[in-house]
Amino acid sequence: MLPFDKLKDTIPKSILDRGLTVLGTESRPIKLLFEQRRVPQEGWKDCQIERFLNLLATMDSDKDSKAAFVGEREGRVVSSAVSKLAGGFHHGVGRSGDLTKAQPKAAGGSLMYFFANILASDAMKRFGVPKIKKAVVFPMATGMTLALVLCATRNLTRGKEVVYPQVDHKTPLKAIQLAGLQERIVEGEIYGDAVNVPTEKIEEAVNENTAAIISTTTFFPPREPDKIKDIAKIAQEKKVPHIINNAFGVQSREIMKLVRGAVDAGRVDAIIQSTDKNFFTPVGGAIVASPNEEFLNHVSETYAGRATAAPVVQFLAAILSIGSEGYEKLRTQQEENRKFLESSLKEVAERHSQRILNVYNPISVAMTLEGRNAKKIGKALYTARVYGSKALEKNDFGVCCPQYISAYINFDASIGIQKNDISLATERLDTVLKTVS
Amino acid sequence: MLPFDKLKDTIPKSILDRGLTVLGTESRPIKLLFEQRRVPQEGWKDCQIERFLNLLATMDSDKDSKAAFVGEREGRVVSSAVSKLAGGFHHGVGRSGDLTKAQPKAAGGSLMYFFANILASDAMKRFGVPKIKKAVVFPMATGMTLALVLCATRNLTRGKEVVYPQVDHKTPLKAIQLAGLQERIVEGEIYGDAVNVPTEKIEEAVNENTAAIISTTTFFPPREPDKIKDIAKIAQEKKVPHIINNAFGVQSREIMKLVRGAVDAGRVDAIIQSTDKNFFTPVGGAIVASPNEEFLNHVSETYAGRATAAPVVQFLAAILSIGSEGYEKLRTQQEENRKFLESSLKEVAERHSQRILNVYNPISVAMTLEGRNAKKIGKALYTARVYGSKALEKNDFGVCCPQYISAYINFDASIGIQKNDISLATERLDTVLKTVS
Amino acid sequence: MLPFDKLKDTIPKSILDRGLTVLGTESRPIKLLFEQRRVPQEGWKDCQIERFLNLLATMDSDKDSKAAFVGEREGRVVSSAVSKLAGGFHHGVGRSGDLTKAQPKAAGGSLMYFFANILASDAMKRFGVPKIKKAVVFPMATGMTLALVLCATRNLTRGKEVVYPQVDHKTPLKAIQLAGLQERIVEGEIYGDAVNVPTEKIEEAVNENTAAIISTTTFFPPREPDKIKDIAKIAQEKKVPHIINNAFGVQSREIMKLVRGAVDAGRVDAIIQSTDKNFFTPVGGAIVASPNEEFLNHVSETYAGRATAAPVVQFLAAILSIGSEGYEKLRTQQEENRKFLESSLKEVAERHSQRILNVYNPISVAMTLEGRNAKKIGKALYTARVYGSKALEKNDFGVCCPQYISAYINFDASIGIQKNDISLATERLDTVLKTVS
Amino acid sequence: MLPFDKLKDTIPKSILDRGLTVLGTESRPIKLLFEQRRVPQEGWKDCQIERFLNLLATMDSDKDSKAAFVGEREGRVVSSAVSKLAGGFHHGVGRSGDLTKAQPKAAGGSLMYFFANILASDAMKRFGVPKIKKAVVFPMATGMTLALVLCATRNLTRGKEVVYPQVDHKTPLKAIQLAGLQERIVEGEIYGDAVNVPTEKIEEAVNENTAAIISTTTFFPPREPDKIKDIAKIAQEKKVPHIINNAFGVQSREIMKLVRGAVDAGRVDAIIQSTDKNFFTPVGGAIVASPNEEFLNHVSETYAGRATAAPVVQFLAAILSIGSEGYEKLRTQQEENRKFLESSLKEVAERHSQRILNVYNPISVAMTLEGRNAKKIGKALYTARVYGSKALEKNDFGVCCPQYISAYINFDASIGIQKNDISLATERLDTVLKTVS
Repeated sequence: MLPFDKLKDTIPKSILDRGLTVLGTESRPIKLLFEQRRVPQEGWKDCQIERFLNLLATMDSDKDSKAAFVGEREGRVVSSAVSKLAGGFHHGVGRSGDLTKAQPKAAGGSLMYFFANILASDAMKRFGVPKIKKAVVFPMATGMTLALVLCATRNLTRGKEVVYPQVDHKTPLKAIQLAGLQERIVEGEIYGDAVNVPTEKIEEAVNENTAAIISTTTFFPPREPDKIKDIAKIAQEKKVPHIINNAFGVQSREIMKLVRGAVDAGRVDAIIQSTDKNFFTPVGGAIVASPNEEFLNHVSETYAGRATAAPVVQFLAAILSIGSEGYEKLRTQQEENRKFLESSLKEVAERHSQRILNVYNPISVAMTLEGRNAKKIGKALYTARVYGSKALEKNDFGVCCPQYISAYINFDASIGIQKNDISLATERLDTVLKTVS
Repeated sequence: MLPFDKLKDTIPKSILDRGLTVLGTESRPIKLLFEQRRVPQEGWKDCQIERFLNLLATMDSDKDSKAAFVGEREGRVVSSAVSKLAGGFHHGVGRSGDLTKAQPKAAGGSLMYFFANILASDAMKRFGVPKIKKAVVFPMATGMTLALVLCATRNLTRGKEVVYPQVDHKTPLKAIQLAGLQERIVEGEIYGDAVNVPTEKIEEAVNENTAAIISTTTFFPPREPDKIKDIAKIAQEKKVPHIINNAFGVQSREIMKLVRGAVDAGRVDAIIQSTDKNFFTPVGGAIVASPNEEFLNHVSETYAGRATAAPVVQFLAAILSIGSEGYEKLRTQQEENRKFLESSLKEVAERHSQRILNVYNPISVAMTLEGRNAKKIGKALYTARVYGSKALEKNDFGVCCPQYISAYINFDASIGIQKNDISLATERLDTVLKTVS
Repeated sequence: MLPFDKLKDTIPKSILDRGLTVLGTESRPIKLLFEQRRVPQEGWKDCQIERFLNLLATMDSDKDSKAAFVGEREGRVVSSAVSKLAGGFHHGVGRSGDLTKAQPKAAGGSLMYFFANILASDAMKRFGVPKIKKAVVFPMATGMTLALVLCATRNLTRGKEVVYPQVDHKTPLKAIQLAGLQERIVEGEIYGDAVNVPTEKIEEAVNENTAAIISTTTFFPPREPDKIKDIAKIAQEKKVPHIINNAFGVQSREIMKLVRGAVDAGRVDAIIQSTDKNFFTPVGGAIVASPNEEFLNHVSETYAGRATAAPVVQFLAAILSIGSEGYEKLRTQQEENRKFLESSLKEVAERHSQRILNVYNPISVAMTLEGRNAKKIGKALYTARVYGSKALEKNDFGVCCPQYISAYINFDASIGIQKNDISLATERLDTVLKTVS
Repeated sequence: MLPFDKLKDTIPKSILDRGLTVLGTESRPIKLLFEQRRVPQEGWKDCQIERFLNLLATMDSDKDSKAAFVGEREGRVVSSAVSKLAGGFHHGVGRSGDLTKAQPKAAGGSLMYFFANILASDAMKRFGVPKIKKAVVFPMATGMTLALVLCATRNLTRGKEVVYPQVDHKTPLKAIQLAGLQERIVEGEIYGDAVNVPTEKIEEAVNENTAAIISTTTFFPPREPDKIKDIAKIAQEKKVPHIINNAFGVQSREIMKLVRGAVDAGRVDAIIQSTDKNFFTPVGGAIVASPNEEFLNHVSETYAGRATAAPVVQFLAAILSIGSEGYEKLRTQQEENRKFLESSLKEVAERHSQRILNVYNPISVAMTLEGRNAKKIGKALYTARVYGSKALEKNDFGVCCPQYISAYINFDASIGIQKNDISLATERLDTVLKTVS
């Protein structure tokens, strides 16, 4: 767009040519993105990401210095500090009729959303579920996005009940209520150390009043992932919508294999995942992926009005920063850290006559707190600046069954965790176990 | 927090003291905010805003270099480019149980939300409605926020119908559907040039199946603001929730007087306003204010899970940047620009044998397009880089009644508009009217 | 450089086209700069400046991700915080042989310097001295730049003495010493209220041992600008280099008229001006302009080695931000503020039985402090947060003559001053005069 | 400075307390810096650096919103884009009389310079020369800084000649000329593969007309470091100032051992090192360190006027970012990379019947280009995007002696080089040697 040829008598030609070559090399990732529309193999540098976003944001009408603005919503911002907080995308995303529609006043913002969705879709396919037809980044976290999906589902069926294999997590329950539906919780049962929900009980719970089934892939031990392949088959057979809450599942190759299995074997209407827990964005966005493009379009048409662009642009920046090779590397590290966490925790357990719970969970590890005060230990760990551990008594909300066999504590080896986090956390747990009565 | 006394032998005392004095002066706005918790009289400089947000964001656990992180959601971001897009607030806002609850991992983010809400409340009181008890900034634009308020309302009544004095705007209708309710539109009627909805027809429409009434203060001529004082009285009498869609009303002293009148005279459960249209933020947030604190708490408890902090921090930054004196100045300018728009448009109208519609509307002005092709004119203006004008035929969705008396075009003199926008837009309209057949 | 045509099936064509149009409009200033190489008429927005600098910095070899770096100086920086402090120009400017030569490793930095110099030259011509042939931005403030010019001069003559019409300013004296030369000060004399140096005494001081004459256009009353036209004639006649210290003269049309008169009438080898005092940059750069291109080339070849790019890029950013219209507006404001300062100060003077010094000075105004303690008053003003006033006793260094007629205080109405500065400063002076004994 | 106690009823106490704890932890590095005034052990994060610099810059008078500015130089900047290019330090550094003196208008800038110098001094001591009494960061690169030191030296002696053991580098020669002195080059001689200058010839060259000796520690093979210990002894004996040009020597423990040896054994007045080549700043600053505090004060008093703060703040940011542990790690990596470079180059050499020059040089490695066209090879490497290699014919300026034994090419394994640079560069050299005739 710029007339670089006009520069020819400014500095020596060989130097200028080299400069333009470097500029070309550094612009190449954008070029490839325009052409291939895939998650880049190699992650972009921050300066490349910022240049790209700036390029797009400059296409929005509010940047048009030749324009006259006489609408009630013109993307006016009070200062550049405020603009920066939106990456320059002042118009948000979406139109009344459809969240993913392009906005006439925001060509750049619309392209930004286009690329975010295209890359979300590519990511979902590449990172485990090739049958995905489409994915959309929603500017709400998983809870509200689940609510939105349920609202869209509700408009398609007459059912009023959502069958929910027990996971002790408030947010999905709130989402069900928000959608004006009733939850029908199918209780968890204990198998050895593990907690899971028997398939036949789920099947029994589904009937003509069922609006949807929500299954869950990621939770904390002793809860295991739902048997989503079986559930997908039930959904198909019984013709009820099936939503997989895959909150932090993309990070794990094993969990994504489960999701792929479900999609291949039965009915899956929507797979919901958090952008922050899987892709290192700030909290606030969710990806809904689906093998059923029509259903997903219906969800984005259900959204009322415009929305903040922030979670979308955060996701776009994050996925460009990570790249596909980078993501696979991070998943490999997650697997290694999961092992390291188990062995580290095992040492602590042995020192305190506890044991590791024998539960299938590719991300988290729990050890018993037999005879100990879980609440006190949890508090002491927070005081010791260990964040994210969950210490529960056997009757607490969180055990996912009427009563668990023991108090326990859970640590997660999530994507992005550092070995140092694990060493510090287990050392501090050791100290806490020694000192807390 | 910093030991400035340790600096005493670094540079001459008189210079150091002066430096500390300046630092004190520049920190004073933060000090006052901590103490008074009000919209600052004078707007803050960008550097002050950024310093304040940075201070808060540094209180969040993800910044804690002495911590060990073993949860599944730890505010990890992939790069500083991504972090900047959230102002450093990686944890979003809210907890499962309540959107406005403080997060143990995010002291800074929680304080940020606290101040955003306190200032939203102060702004609503000062800028027109002293009886407001509480306001909350929601991280969704007005459409979805309206849907959320309707969901909260729905849980309180048995009604299934939303009485809606006709405004031809898709988003509120979508919000009603999303909440699983039915709209009951009360048709607009023509009074001279103006369109409005007769109070008695609204009253007739309210019955035991009514879930809520949505009234509207801001729309485009020929539509006038709803008679919200009368509607508030009906709501009180009939005991139905009353939600005022005050989308871009805070900017206008006249409209805020209407809102105040409604609150004083009858029942108002929620007043919803856009952050971008009133406070110069990017699109994506809405303020819900209420004279009824309990109801507002119920709304924030209805939200499912965590949310993006971006629209909240954008609002906080914007209101600090504007200040209360700044806002009053902007409102005065809006009034002047409204007059200038009317006189400028009148000149054009006369030149083309059209006239200004005689409609009460403190923000927008419309002129007839009698005998002209509104669609073509609208398109030509977009081509001429005039954004935000609305040119309608008399049967178009938008006229807010079965059939209007004439085609017309509408321009808004919204807060933040520049005189130059008006001059340019009316000149270009003049040209378009000359050239478009 | 980017394949925008690949975007054609992403968003609707009309929206995409509009986006590209806006992008084109926003890129137009860069295009014009490439083509015209003049100070832009209208100042650029910050975002345009940053985009332009970023574009150039991306052309430098250190950004080349396909390169291998095996030199001892490769523009490596430790972090992006450090990079930002240089605007991304890590290679500095200059080569061993010549400060203004392009660097093979830094095409972008070299272009940046090229444009800074071209615009400095254009600014000097447009803002008053059309005969300027070339100007160079030096990465040192006026003092060191004067020293450099003197070193260059020294290499061209055999003289060892610098004739210096008395200005009581340490820095030029230091510059003379640094160059290994001797100052020959021609004493100031009093004419009414004014202090100036008689032309004939200057003429007498010039002889075969003269290395250069330094004349001065901007200092504080009672000192008036040197009669540089006369001095230029002497320089021409006697064939000695003549350097004009025009430190903050560009801001004043009157002073620039004097400079133009000197250049037109006699010999001027170099005109030195501060970037910060004239162009709102941080302290640290100076522009040397000359009607003699060869001499200026000699100066830039005298510089030893590479240099920091910071003052250069700061100047470039500043001049782009101001624009030529903006600068003229600022100069007009300076003139108005100079008048306002005089009338404000006059009021204070009358209230305290003092008077304004009757001195020709287009920027500053002084009033007598007859019978008052100047030192105490100066200190009290600093305490009252009035910066930049100069209160002197009649024998102080600063009066520019053996003994002045009265103590006095000086205020400057420099470019960029606000009316509010003047009001506050004169009010505070009034208070100080009342309270300080 | 902020009243955090006023926050007590905003969010739950335990959360607020945690936030303040995190804030305290993150502020701790600044606290330690205030107290200990040493290079921090652990490098700071970018956000900490930016917060610290912002804190200081906010102490400068131009940030004082209660002030009235009536001087001719008030740190006014035209926009925040310009301000950022100076890290907010608009007043530069220094005063007329002394570059390192605090400025009354710039408490923050003065503190910034204080810390830069204190850390430069600490770095020089810790990284090799404990006898350093003081160090100052000069806002000019090594060439101009050498010129300044020579000017300061010139004022202390009557000598006019600078004895300079031959190093074929233009900049020091320019510095000598700028200072108005004459170079007396003592020719290099060949010892096996190495080039060095015999001590006795240096001794012979020193006489009563000697203004200074400049010795050199870092240059490219075949040149070895000067025998600076011997030269220091000569300087002491003959009472002539001795300046060590240690341009990129701090990065190497071996070279710093040589410097230490010189300081311990004889006379060293100034040791000059580049900030960019040793500390990863952009080009533009130099550190002068000295065991003789008085001499260094004299140098900073020789500087004429104020100066740009940019190179100073860039150094401060860089050294805080690196930390002392970080620097030692980087030096260890440099040593490993030097070995890897030698072995990689050796392989290439053997493949092309060349050999590695047997020269003592802890940073660079050279191989012969016997029978090859060095100029063509150099050009081809630049085309292949290998930056920084030096390919010379035996008579070229650069061989540091009348005629060298062979053409050769030099690669540097400087601090910060990546293994990948070495692999790529040697591969490309291999290809070039195969293809260039």
